[in-house]
Amino acid sequence: MQDKTIVELLKSEKTHVDVTVRGWVRSFRSNRFIALNDGSTIKTLQCVVDFENFEEEILKKVTIGAAIEVTGTLVESQGQGQTVEIQVSKLTVLGEANPEDVKLTILSPKRHSLETLREQAHLRIRTNTFGAVMRTRSKLAFAVHEYFQKNGFNYMHSPIITGSDAEGAGEMFRVSNLDAKNPPLDENGTVNYKEDFFEKETNLTVSGQLEAETYAMALGKVYTFGPTFRAENSNTSRHLAEFWMIEPEVAFNDLDANMDLAEDFIKYVVNYALENCADDLEFLENRLLEEEKNKPEAERSEMKLREKLQFILENNFKRVTYTEAIDILKRSKPNQKKKFKYIIEEWGADLQSEHERFLVEKHFKCPVILFDYPANIKSFYMRLNDDGKTVRAMDVLFPGIGEIVGGSEREERYDVLLQKMKTMNIDEKELYWYLDLRKFGTATHSGFGLGFERLVQFTTGMGNIRDVIPYPRTPGNAEF
Amino acid sequence: MQDKTIVELLKSEKTHVDVTVRGWVRSFRSNRFIALNDGSTIKTLQCVVDFENFEEEILKKVTIGAAIEVTGTLVESQGQGQTVEIQVSKLTVLGEANPEDVKLTILSPKRHSLETLREQAHLRIRTNTFGAVMRTRSKLAFAVHEYFQKNGFNYMHSPIITGSDAEGAGEMFRVSNLDAKNPPLDENGTVNYKEDFFEKETNLTVSGQLEAETYAMALGKVYTFGPTFRAENSNTSRHLAEFWMIEPEVAFNDLDANMDLAEDFIKYVVNYALENCADDLEFLENRLLEEEKNKPEAERSEMKLREKLQFILENNFKRVTYTEAIDILKRSKPNQKKKFKYIIEEWGADLQSEHERFLVEKHFKCPVILFDYPANIKSFYMRLNDDGKTVRAMDVLFPGIGEIVGGSEREERYDVLLQKMKTMNIDEKELYWYLDLRKFGTATHSGFGLGFERLVQFTTGMGNIRDVIPYPRTPGNAEF
Repeated sequence: MQDKTIVELLKSEKTHVDVTVRGWVRSFRSNRFIALNDGSTIKTLQCVVDFENFEEEILKKVTIGAAIEVTGTLVESQGQGQTVEIQVSKLTVLGEANPEDVKLTILSPKRHSLETLREQAHLRIRTNTFGAVMRTRSKLAFAVHEYFQKNGFNYMHSPIITGSDAEGAGEMFRVSNLDAKNPPLDENGTVNYKEDFFEKETNLTVSGQLEAETYAMALGKVYTFGPTFRAENSNTSRHLAEFWMIEPEVAFNDLDANMDLAEDFIKYVVNYALENCADDLEFLENRLLEEEKNKPEAERSEMKLREKLQFILENNFKRVTYTEAIDILKRSKPNQKKKFKYIIEEWGADLQSEHERFLVEKHFKCPVILFDYPANIKSFYMRLNDDGKTVRAMDVLFPGIGEIVGGSEREERYDVLLQKMKTMNIDEKELYWYLDLRKFGTATHSGFGLGFERLVQFTTGMGNIRDVIPYPRTPGNAEF
Repeated sequence: MQDKTIVELLKSEKTHVDVTVRGWVRSFRSNRFIALNDGSTIKTLQCVVDFENFEEEILKKVTIGAAIEVTGTLVESQGQGQTVEIQVSKLTVLGEANPEDVKLTILSPKRHSLETLREQAHLRIRTNTFGAVMRTRSKLAFAVHEYFQKNGFNYMHSPIITGSDAEGAGEMFRVSNLDAKNPPLDENGTVNYKEDFFEKETNLTVSGQLEAETYAMALGKVYTFGPTFRAENSNTSRHLAEFWMIEPEVAFNDLDANMDLAEDFIKYVVNYALENCADDLEFLENRLLEEEKNKPEAERSEMKLREKLQFILENNFKRVTYTEAIDILKRSKPNQKKKFKYIIEEWGADLQSEHERFLVEKHFKCPVILFDYPANIKSFYMRLNDDGKTVRAMDVLFPGIGEIVGGSEREERYDVLLQKMKTMNIDEKELYWYLDLRKFGTATHSGFGLGFERLVQFTTGMGNIRDVIPYPRTPGNAEF
């Protein structure tokens, strides 16, 4: 392992020492100044070569994207915007990069579109934008773990392959080992999954919540952080077929405590990014400003990226019942002037993205937690309120993103849950273990799910969710 | 959220304060002493009730597994083995647990077999053993993240659904959305995956390594930590169809640096468990002693659980070439007396579990890193040594577990890699992106994979891998 990475060298207080550093060439100006990057930071280390001391054949190979090793003396930099630089005494080209190869153009100073970069997902990570996004993603992921561990939660790995398709949160991917063309059939002529690997039909999980509940009812506080899947044909900038989800679940928490947890958690991880990704966020903020220059003024963000993150930290999330929200929406200008695509006519309507964004961005101008939704537009496991028509559900709505968190207090009463399952045609035999939790030592408990990529999008200001995950899976796309 | 959990209350220095605590009843002795557990620790909090102050109807419901809330005064405990207890002034039963229900017998003080508990994986987490294992698992997972983040690694989410089946590390599970019984066929009569969700055949990943390499060659140091899958019909105590893997990958690291990293990393996480899971490891150590009493003396562990962990910390891992190992094995007693199932005849033999265990447990009596394996028994991507017949592969072998880490320096030379792929029939078109890494700024790099469940097994002393993951997936088993 190299002694020091560039991020460490740039912080060096000790100069006039010999160092060796390895990385990739970002630029080579005047046959003299190499900007070297090793991925440890968005910044480059300036390596100054005296071309008279090096063979031309070697310097020719110092092209954008080439891997090199330099040894030299670390000195205070003469140039602007950098603290130290290396006076190179030895230079080795480890791996060349043919400057004429068309793929390498994505590394050129000329900005390429995010769409073009997406087609070269194995190389786009070498650009400043994706380096910044993925370093920030990594830091955010760690902040998630640190928050929960500090607060006494146990990380729980819920299963990825599931034999249960009962939650009905969306279409699922089938996992199978049977002959794809001629699957074995049973006497009724249907596919005989008894001959499959798991001896039953299995799918990829859409949520680890139900299993997390089994652990919360023993360990008290748990969270999951793992991949989840939706086989939905949604080609939008907000949907992936494979994405990472965070699902805390806490015994004895009611909905109020659940809201407190969601707000505290989000503020922690956003603050962690502000404190630990300063250089990357600065770059991403400027990238966003640049990108928005091409947009009509009305579509530009009101706040700069880091202002927006700071705003989240400094404001209480406004807590509003669904019923209040419907009143506000019914009386709103876009509703009355029929500017909404879906006009809000009456209580019970499912809120669309346009309504959520109106509430957050126009009406309240701050993050909003909507709660107590109509029972019939929400999942079977949410706790029924005494009014008999609303459930203890909550959604956290963010500016620019819409729903970032969905959660609820869970129905902990056996009879009420069983009745709900019957009404909603949920197979109670298959979910016997979920019902067991209500038979043996049941108690109030709550939790929520947060789509990690939405959080990364919000924090980095990236408009398309495909640009915040290394290898996005979407309809028709499972490259690499 | 409740104010304080039991693990916090047990550390209280302030007594004679009123507290409220919620949890599940572990026992209720003499109609007076409730042992309450909330999952935050393996320990219970003693709650002392004066039965004259409570209705008999309520006390009757204080049975094993019931959820209760108690309010009372925290006082220094009179009893042994506990620092504080609660003098209960108020007791509420939140959720009853019918003591006659057969499922609840797994919570009874009478020890049940791990096999029986496995059938009730949603309830087994309420037992001391599984509470201890899963809390330790959570802490180990955090130690993994903390180690890498402290050392400048970026966490990378490699894809779970993969369109590439080129690595050939094992049989894969197919992921599909086509009609299972009557899939569409193309003009050649084969299944037409162009009509599938991803418009190609897709599988569950067996390893994130190749994608991690693409990120290491830009960000320098990366690691993955995610689920991986093997559709192998292995019904052993060491195999799962779904398991979590950790795969660091580091640009500019050679094999020596890779060994240093593996050793340093393992020592860090094991030490983290010793420091942060003291109560759970104490319990698990005693559990193991108890379990081994039923074994013949020769099969019992030579060291107690925590001694074994300490031993790992205090000893250098012995680094031995494959060639040296073969010499040792050929001359060994079990080989000469034909006690091995597979007799080692000559250089080139693939080592079996029995050989690895002999080297670790009998010969060296310490963790061993074997390296420089024959090229033809290892993967295509491992770097060829100058001898032309061995590759820069390494396996870390642990007592009781066998292989816990497998890794290598990667073949960074384009021509050598291409030749190897041709020889081994790896589709170079499909892996064009992997070859690209050798075209543009290639450099020495190395990494390894560690099966997280093997690490949890080693740390907790659990004999069967199905008992260290919440919901194990094995042939014929995808319950819950």
